[in-house]
Amino acid sequence: MARGVVALLALSATGCAGNREIWACPHALDLEPGPAAATAPASSLAPRYVVTVARILEEARARSRAYERLRFLCDRIGNRLSGSENLDKAVAWAAETMRSDGLDEVRTEPVMVPKWVRGYESVVLLTPWRKPLCALAIGNSEGGVLSSEALGKGAFEGEVVVARDWAGLEALGDRVKGKVVLFHHPMRPYEPGKDTGYGESVDYRVNGASRAAAKGAVACLVCSATARSLGTPHTGALRYVDDAPKIPAACLSPEDSAMIVRLVEAGETVRVAMALGSRFEDDVPSANVVGEIRGSERPEEVVVFGGHLDSWDVGQGAHDDGGPCVAAMEAMRILRTLGLRPRRTIRVVLFTNEENGLRGGKAYAKDHEKELEKHVAAIEADSGAFRPLGFSTPAAPADATPEEKARFDRIRARLREAVALLAPVGAGTLGEGGGGADIGPMAPAGVPQIGLDVDMATYFDIHHTDADTFDKVVKEDLDLCAGVLAALVYVLADMPESLRE
Amino acid sequence: MARGVVALLALSATGCAGNREIWACPHALDLEPGPAAATAPASSLAPRYVVTVARILEEARARSRAYERLRFLCDRIGNRLSGSENLDKAVAWAAETMRSDGLDEVRTEPVMVPKWVRGYESVVLLTPWRKPLCALAIGNSEGGVLSSEALGKGAFEGEVVVARDWAGLEALGDRVKGKVVLFHHPMRPYEPGKDTGYGESVDYRVNGASRAAAKGAVACLVCSATARSLGTPHTGALRYVDDAPKIPAACLSPEDSAMIVRLVEAGETVRVAMALGSRFEDDVPSANVVGEIRGSERPEEVVVFGGHLDSWDVGQGAHDDGGPCVAAMEAMRILRTLGLRPRRTIRVVLFTNEENGLRGGKAYAKDHEKELEKHVAAIEADSGAFRPLGFSTPAAPADATPEEKARFDRIRARLREAVALLAPVGAGTLGEGGGGADIGPMAPAGVPQIGLDVDMATYFDIHHTDADTFDKVVKEDLDLCAGVLAALVYVLADMPESLRE
Repeated sequence: MARGVVALLALSATGCAGNREIWACPHALDLEPGPAAATAPASSLAPRYVVTVARILEEARARSRAYERLRFLCDRIGNRLSGSENLDKAVAWAAETMRSDGLDEVRTEPVMVPKWVRGYESVVLLTPWRKPLCALAIGNSEGGVLSSEALGKGAFEGEVVVARDWAGLEALGDRVKGKVVLFHHPMRPYEPGKDTGYGESVDYRVNGASRAAAKGAVACLVCSATARSLGTPHTGALRYVDDAPKIPAACLSPEDSAMIVRLVEAGETVRVAMALGSRFEDDVPSANVVGEIRGSERPEEVVVFGGHLDSWDVGQGAHDDGGPCVAAMEAMRILRTLGLRPRRTIRVVLFTNEENGLRGGKAYAKDHEKELEKHVAAIEADSGAFRPLGFSTPAAPADATPEEKARFDRIRARLREAVALLAPVGAGTLGEGGGGADIGPMAPAGVPQIGLDVDMATYFDIHHTDADTFDKVVKEDLDLCAGVLAALVYVLADMPESLRE
Repeated sequence: MARGVVALLALSATGCAGNREIWACPHALDLEPGPAAATAPASSLAPRYVVTVARILEEARARSRAYERLRFLCDRIGNRLSGSENLDKAVAWAAETMRSDGLDEVRTEPVMVPKWVRGYESVVLLTPWRKPLCALAIGNSEGGVLSSEALGKGAFEGEVVVARDWAGLEALGDRVKGKVVLFHHPMRPYEPGKDTGYGESVDYRVNGASRAAAKGAVACLVCSATARSLGTPHTGALRYVDDAPKIPAACLSPEDSAMIVRLVEAGETVRVAMALGSRFEDDVPSANVVGEIRGSERPEEVVVFGGHLDSWDVGQGAHDDGGPCVAAMEAMRILRTLGLRPRRTIRVVLFTNEENGLRGGKAYAKDHEKELEKHVAAIEADSGAFRPLGFSTPAAPADATPEEKARFDRIRARLREAVALLAPVGAGTLGEGGGGADIGPMAPAGVPQIGLDVDMATYFDIHHTDADTFDKVVKEDLDLCAGVLAALVYVLADMPESLRE
């Protein structure tokens, strides 16, 4: 072992502060070493990979192209809803950019995607006073004109009833019939290390319309899934069931939602007009963008990673999921630039249509069905390009067999060794949690699911809004995302034992 | 002197923490005594007023009606632009509410106000990609259809040029002709104790349209005057000069403004469509709402205070200026309930049309012209109903005569004694600054100008937006605003020497 490596290893036990220059930690100057870094155990993989990981992180810190690429994607191409011209442009740009980075192979894999069009949208409070509400149609919503005193093409208007949760909907009983149901279940304030409450809140956005319709509602409003707002409505997808009418649905800003709740709970009759021009058109062609660095010894074994290139049709999709996509692209460029070729193949996939259909993720799993037994890991970055904290992988299901449980434990144990290499830059924590929507369809085939964890303190403030814009991205954080992704995929693709064996 | 009063006086020197129960400080549990409270000198007025001030603050803490009244104003009446039905309702409600509080006299003083109507508004990015921009027409803007590829009634679209300040506008020279000028001068992040930068930023909203038009621009866009945004456009007033075309003008969210700046500065051609249906209709009747507690010894001497009942036509005008208005109303109720009748008259005025005309403030000064020499103080609360920190009064102008300067110094010295009584609840600081827009027209007549100072950390985030809503108001802060206003106006109206003498 070379003297330099020994020195690095000695340093690697001391945490971020001690390794400032060697590890080129972008946060060295403004971050105290976090608890994770301070207590992280040494990695058994360190002798083999500590120098390579350091080179990767330094390339990311010093020469990353991610920020300028994200600027291009956000500003020149724009947001990227499935079926939009912008998404087509983004697919072409991503493939071309990867090619210019000199990957071994770059291809687009065709996927048919739904084309939902927002059209006009207007939700107006009519009584007790008149106010255009801050609203966005929920993605996949059918259109509909609920009234039009407001819009001058008359029909009817709706009275609002309020449910704070599913029990509240039940309690309304027959009072739902012919009414507009408002689900008011905003997220709780963010607390580091605790569940964000997004899942609980978003349940109403996804399922509220059909459950209200099943009880006779004529339209659905949902408080946006966020804990903070400056008059900010969020969009996102809903899912209609087959056995209930497809009623129009829109999210309100938390402020407007809370106002209606106060009014209704004070006994006031609240009437709204609502007109959505949203609709589905025919499915259109799109594609997953796939790039590879071929493995030197076991090219048939694949570490797949990436994010989704599509976004909602508001803001710029900068954190969701443009930033993570360019970070993944940058990870590949870094490995290529450094001439690193691992034993196994590394494959980056920028999935299409995650937001309102998951067609890209499903198509990948289906089209590559026969290769999936050789997929040793799938990693998704879809929580924004904020400061990376580590990675996570799911625990075994509660009803897992002993063999199945042992398999999950083995994956976790091996992954922990790899992730621990990132402790010096504050990203060495291995959490327990989901991987990501796009890689989910590979889970039944036994592909280990891994997610990039980042500081999500402000993610849900901007998620699916006009505020998810390039100005919210911090270059150093984005670059570090690229660095830790590159380091992890390299180590997983090169380490002697496969994560999955 | 009763034993209890002696005990109170002894305690009054020890600051907030020591007086927790007696002063009933709503912040006692969550605030360390601030530097102001810790270092505030004892007030020479304490022997006379400390018990009364304590009773006033306790009434505000324990029995304030301000929060429920603000809820009614915001939710049941709504926002209150001049000329709107809502403002008429608010005037009637405020007068009726004051009457029910048993003031000596309540009246509405008629004022004709402008009626500006927002109408439709649409600003759409056309190149390099298409995006509806987050925009609000600037109040008082003329309407105009700049394009309408976007809107289907054809005309023309405009190319955007960017100016970061007035020098930037000059530097554009002839390139302004026939273009849309975007002024991008957002506020700097808020820092306690420093100038917010609002004045500097809002200059472009107020004057940008005419200055751009004078150079040949066909429309004007302005980055909203704020330092924080979640896709949030702000409105506010503009002022057209007579010798330039009245071009349409709208504010953009900081995100969209920043995006256009990045694009233009990167050499991209940015084209927008813009259609504003805004217009002035004929002036309509409105009114200032005036309530009085008549002075016992010198009723002709008046302490006047209040806020403005009108608001912009977005959000609910909860902090601007509904909260301060109900706090002023509550201050009068408190004094009435406690049976406090000072030597001089206390007059609350809820002004109309502060936001886009100042007709209420001007009318008051004109209609009461002959009484103004007996107005001993004018106090305005128009910075939100956040935690009160103290009051402020302007310094003498730089070019003041020695006599004039002595007058300002005398006012400041006397006011300091009164304000110091509020140190135990953290509102004892006397700052240097303006009084308020509505009371400004009384300044030339020598009426001392005083403003209520509050914690403005988040004020400009929500100012003139759909986020200025009731949920942003903290009951304890609002109640304390009422308490400190009541205490100050009482002391100023009762203290032996007039502030103005």
